[in-house]
Amino acid sequence: MKNYILLNENAVYYECGFSCDNVIYLKLGSENYYITDARYSTEAKEYAKNAMVVESSDLIKSAQEIISKTKIKKLNFDPNDFKLSFYEKLTADLKTDFIAKENFSKLKRAVKTDKEIEILRKASQIGKAGFKQLAKYIKKNGYNLSEKQLHFKAIEKMSNFGKYELSFDPIVAINENAAKPHALPTNKKLKLNNLILVDAGVKYKRYCSDRTCTANANFEKFNFNREQKFKNKKHQKIYDVVYKAQLNAIEKARVGMKASKVDQLTRDIITKAGFGEYFVHSTGHGVGLDIHEFPTINSKSDVIIEENMVFTIEPGIYLPDEFGVRIEDTVVMKNGRVEIL
Amino acid sequence: MKNYILLNENAVYYECGFSCDNVIYLKLGSENYYITDARYSTEAKEYAKNAMVVESSDLIKSAQEIISKTKIKKLNFDPNDFKLSFYEKLTADLKTDFIAKENFSKLKRAVKTDKEIEILRKASQIGKAGFKQLAKYIKKNGYNLSEKQLHFKAIEKMSNFGKYELSFDPIVAINENAAKPHALPTNKKLKLNNLILVDAGVKYKRYCSDRTCTANANFEKFNFNREQKFKNKKHQKIYDVVYKAQLNAIEKARVGMKASKVDQLTRDIITKAGFGEYFVHSTGHGVGLDIHEFPTINSKSDVIIEENMVFTIEPGIYLPDEFGVRIEDTVVMKNGRVEIL
Repeated sequence: MKNYILLNENAVYYECGFSCDNVIYLKLGSENYYITDARYSTEAKEYAKNAMVVESSDLIKSAQEIISKTKIKKLNFDPNDFKLSFYEKLTADLKTDFIAKENFSKLKRAVKTDKEIEILRKASQIGKAGFKQLAKYIKKNGYNLSEKQLHFKAIEKMSNFGKYELSFDPIVAINENAAKPHALPTNKKLKLNNLILVDAGVKYKRYCSDRTCTANANFEKFNFNREQKFKNKKHQKIYDVVYKAQLNAIEKARVGMKASKVDQLTRDIITKAGFGEYFVHSTGHGVGLDIHEFPTINSKSDVIIEENMVFTIEPGIYLPDEFGVRIEDTVVMKNGRVEIL
Repeated sequence: MKNYILLNENAVYYECGFSCDNVIYLKLGSENYYITDARYSTEAKEYAKNAMVVESSDLIKSAQEIISKTKIKKLNFDPNDFKLSFYEKLTADLKTDFIAKENFSKLKRAVKTDKEIEILRKASQIGKAGFKQLAKYIKKNGYNLSEKQLHFKAIEKMSNFGKYELSFDPIVAINENAAKPHALPTNKKLKLNNLILVDAGVKYKRYCSDRTCTANANFEKFNFNREQKFKNKKHQKIYDVVYKAQLNAIEKARVGMKASKVDQLTRDIITKAGFGEYFVHSTGHGVGLDIHEFPTINSKSDVIIEENMVFTIEPGIYLPDEFGVRIEDTVVMKNGRVEIL
């Protein structure tokens, strides 16, 4: 793509290795422009690679001037990236055609470079260390703490006391709250042999980790390992089905498969066990600078899985008013197969 | 305004007392519709007042059907609230005219009800208690902690260990980092008699608090009181100017004044002291469900200050590469004058 405009922080970071919350990035042929205000221009000049930094108190006006000068006729943009008000101001007096290309930046970021994969691997390692610290805390102090308190502790442990940013607000849910895939933490307290679900991730060099563990609250042996012994037999039964579904996709997914086929690898196991209607979301999503990228691993996606794609495999079963189980890892396609990050 | 459409969570909450992150709210004459998906419809039915809840897996399609049926000709919307892609999908096959009214929800929320003011007062009290706890922590453990670690502690104390949501990501900045109004926390460590700036707030019943304290890092007596004794004389001098500027606006602002006049009340003091060029932002902003609402208190605003408006008064002086001072309170106009919340 020769000419395009970007506003999204991660999309801009991908282009030039620097970003901030007030930027218009223009690629006009071989020239790149990083338009920002005085708060960020000094750092932009130091860090933004292969881009001319334009300091401006009116970013839209500066962008219009630059676009007009180049006389380019067509400029690609992502309509998900633009507020209507911004779009109307920017395009008001320009003769350039704005061509809507949904998600074009995310699409080109679906296949990662080896360098990106190393960063994502490190992010996952930090995330796993956070889960370990949280497990240690729950083992020692977890009994009778509310979801809200555990949610706060999840932030503390995952971020390593603020050292790392989080990929997203963690989910901490006990028993029937875990039956809601996007549960908000409540005052519900953790009791012996409850089921607890934690979905959390951290950022390392701006790249996200993403992982979900479901565990039995046996305080003497509490851990977030994949092998779990639940006191409650139904917990164990559902857990075993979900885990089997996840392992099936991890073992059998291949480069060259359609994403829908990877989805089927988890869904078939759950459906055959009789719980298909309770697996209410897709099998996974790409992970990178954004927590939700491409490929989308669902039943409708014709996207072909490629080497160096990074995505989650996260089947789940949610029994309303009872409990839910989700098991999630972020994986990379390497040598044609799945490798867990 | 008879007919309008809202997407923003806080705007929707203001209408009906309930909100979620996937909603289209329609006011069509005397009928109100809360369109959402299956994750939220049960709670919406319980909590959304005076609105018909429509459960849908395709919110845009459901909105189109409802709008078409009513045959209304003009529908108001906020173009800041709509992504271009959403706008285009929604309006594609509708005959209704969409009338852009920027910020119409925020504008009507500028003057608070007494009930809202009580909630905002409570939010401010919780915020102040958080600052006290943070001060206590710094007094005991603060020496040699980095901005990042202090930033994490600010989250812990302000949120009361996760009990309250924060209004925004707190700012914790030491010496020259405090010279950046929107500093990000670094590995810089707090040393004896450094200057430390903390800008933080919490949410209570979804309403925000907002406060900034600048303090001298004398660990024996550390506090976030307004009366501060700085070891460094230049710190003290600048602090005294900013505090005088803030007090001037608190004492003299009146209902019936233009917002620009309130801005002048702080700016004049700073300008007369010779630091006008280092007061690089406006005097304040409205506070409510959103952390930035109306009125905007800057040099250009002709808005008339009204009884029951709630806004910040937050002058600052930022000396590049040296340090910065900001002092901020959230206030309400009561009986024609300023009352600090």
